[in-house]
Amino acid sequence: MTNNSYDYRQDFPLLMQDRTIYIDNAATSQRPQSVIDAEMDFYRNHNANPLRGSYPLSVEATDIYENARVTVKNFINASSTEEIIFTRNTTEGLNLVAYSYGLTNISAGDEIVVSIMEHHSNLLPWQMVSRQTGAALKFIECEQDGSVDLDKVAALITDKTKLVAMTHVSNVLGRENPIAEVAALAHAKGAVMVVDGAQSTPHMAIDVRALGADFFAFSGHKLMGPMGIGVLYGRRELLDKMPPFLSGGEMIDSVTRDGAKFAELPHKFEAGTVNAAGAAGLDAAIKYIQSVGFDYMQERELAVTRRALEGMKNIPHVHIFGSDRAEEHTGIITFAIDNVHPHDVSEVLIADGIAVRAGHHCAQPLLAYLGVNSTTRASFMFYNTEEEADAFVKSVASVRERMGYGE
Amino acid sequence: MTNNSYDYRQDFPLLMQDRTIYIDNAATSQRPQSVIDAEMDFYRNHNANPLRGSYPLSVEATDIYENARVTVKNFINASSTEEIIFTRNTTEGLNLVAYSYGLTNISAGDEIVVSIMEHHSNLLPWQMVSRQTGAALKFIECEQDGSVDLDKVAALITDKTKLVAMTHVSNVLGRENPIAEVAALAHAKGAVMVVDGAQSTPHMAIDVRALGADFFAFSGHKLMGPMGIGVLYGRRELLDKMPPFLSGGEMIDSVTRDGAKFAELPHKFEAGTVNAAGAAGLDAAIKYIQSVGFDYMQERELAVTRRALEGMKNIPHVHIFGSDRAEEHTGIITFAIDNVHPHDVSEVLIADGIAVRAGHHCAQPLLAYLGVNSTTRASFMFYNTEEEADAFVKSVASVRERMGYGE
Repeated sequence: MTNNSYDYRQDFPLLMQDRTIYIDNAATSQRPQSVIDAEMDFYRNHNANPLRGSYPLSVEATDIYENARVTVKNFINASSTEEIIFTRNTTEGLNLVAYSYGLTNISAGDEIVVSIMEHHSNLLPWQMVSRQTGAALKFIECEQDGSVDLDKVAALITDKTKLVAMTHVSNVLGRENPIAEVAALAHAKGAVMVVDGAQSTPHMAIDVRALGADFFAFSGHKLMGPMGIGVLYGRRELLDKMPPFLSGGEMIDSVTRDGAKFAELPHKFEAGTVNAAGAAGLDAAIKYIQSVGFDYMQERELAVTRRALEGMKNIPHVHIFGSDRAEEHTGIITFAIDNVHPHDVSEVLIADGIAVRAGHHCAQPLLAYLGVNSTTRASFMFYNTEEEADAFVKSVASVRERMGYGE
Repeated sequence: MTNNSYDYRQDFPLLMQDRTIYIDNAATSQRPQSVIDAEMDFYRNHNANPLRGSYPLSVEATDIYENARVTVKNFINASSTEEIIFTRNTTEGLNLVAYSYGLTNISAGDEIVVSIMEHHSNLLPWQMVSRQTGAALKFIECEQDGSVDLDKVAALITDKTKLVAMTHVSNVLGRENPIAEVAALAHAKGAVMVVDGAQSTPHMAIDVRALGADFFAFSGHKLMGPMGIGVLYGRRELLDKMPPFLSGGEMIDSVTRDGAKFAELPHKFEAGTVNAAGAAGLDAAIKYIQSVGFDYMQERELAVTRRALEGMKNIPHVHIFGSDRAEEHTGIITFAIDNVHPHDVSEVLIADGIAVRAGHHCAQPLLAYLGVNSTTRASFMFYNTEEEADAFVKSVASVRERMGYGE
């Protein structure tokens, strides 16, 4: 299956420069050369506006674009390519659902349920829908370790609930949520389940049908694909009834001065010239992931995360958010050091050549719940090494002394 | 200034293959290697999520992204970088204006004025605003040669008019519209002027302030930049008062469970991870255009367009839409041949290795006005040659005979 003696880092030009220990993968991943090549090959050899022309270049561009859709469909086990909409990123996908599904299916008296651990991109669109429709917004709380009590969720989802929005994996705690169970509770009350897959798709096999996701959004750039391309999966039965979101070229069947008849799925939701080069890059990224295999990636990510976590547990004054178990972090370690501002923590790490992120991680309500304004986050990918984990731990261990706190 | 003996075609890898006579540039242009290199360089040497991290890679990514904004600002003579919003394409920019400005500033009893020659992307968003608000949609007609009678426009724009939407250059007729004059009429009645710059930006110097554009949208891919990146210019005073369109990460100042305080311009309108690699490519495309110079590009485009137009005038049964003058075509020649379906025309041209487009060109109301369902369109760029124009004319001249109509 996988060749464990192969050093996958050599596939990543930026990693080969050894200029940084890159452990900010939850923000964006690095790209293998095959992804860069796929975009370049599109522009050098097949560049035309897809879906429009009947000359060979345009037919090739269309084939590349639509083949990427097939790759995505299989990657997440959707029922058909008509359920795969190419977007710019996760955020656009979730906004599409909010504007097109939310504003037309939710009204005053209804309830929207979101989890407290959402990235702002799966919270603000629902605040918007709540503001515009008068529907109430209710929160699924989590425990201090990031787990979710399904009994509390069951009590929160009622006949008034029209939509439940939840992230598959928290971008702060790294913990996987029990999406299938929550979706079953939502469906039992006739609500639809919206899943933010930005942090799960790079790390685990996705089956949108097994998850019970009615909508599932993710970004190419977090799974080693290009920036500027993302995916929204939607159940066909729902997408069919939804009005278009963006309107313009490509998404129509016919237009008069007074109105338009819209195209069939998935093009109804893809207005304007599509990012075919980006889709080619995403296709290559998924194929790269499949060539490495999630089994091997997870084994490596767990090994490195465990090494970092175990090392950090021995450092006084360091507090790790979420679970004690490396298996429940999906490569993400968010932490605080007593009396040191997270930005100062990251400055020390940066001085040691380590790229981590400090801040609110676009999840302010969760941080408020955890009782902090900001934290430092390291996030590992399969290409990170034990040596990198050790360097990270060593740097973290030195922070208080270097900031003048002594031991 | 420009080196007329330099063969710019060698900058374009796809053109150097000589596999096609590519004259479908109004759909999308080809990319010079420098644009491809800029994207590749981003991924290989500076890849990180911009605007988020404080480590060197992220700072570099941020600088590349924000420097592209400066390049765009200067390219269209905006007042500040806060007026430059990166979008996916023209369509998204125009939809942003429709949702954020249109739905909050236009109501029942108001009027929206659009031209009959709009691409669907500058028509359907206003049909949507009209539907949702009850405002009336009124049309600026054009003459058969594509010109606009300013007296008729003046009569159409009244105290009820809140917004005038017009394309700078028609994607079917290639004719430049008198935007500055129409904008002055709009402003005299207190209406805002929305300009679709998709077809003008690749061919002429743009000064959004001289044009009087309140909003001006364009795409990277039509001006030799990458797919998946576009620009919306908006006057700061208007953007400042507008609510966000897409919401999520990056576009907030702070978020609570109940609501959010939004970020300052331009980030208020750039939700989610930005397409920094695309912005790097767009920056390179603009610099490429500046290195060639619009003077030289226009000289070449006019020469080739004139050659094709003059040749076509001698072919019986061929009808060219729009002006008789090559100067009024911006490289675009849309035509019909008596009794031959445009798709059959393009099939003959394709057989001769020529890439043109047949169809409604996403401008069905204009085609209805011109009395046709579809047409064939050739669109030249500065890198096209007289030899290509001649081959095109020769192919067009052969169509009727090859379709069995004799001479």
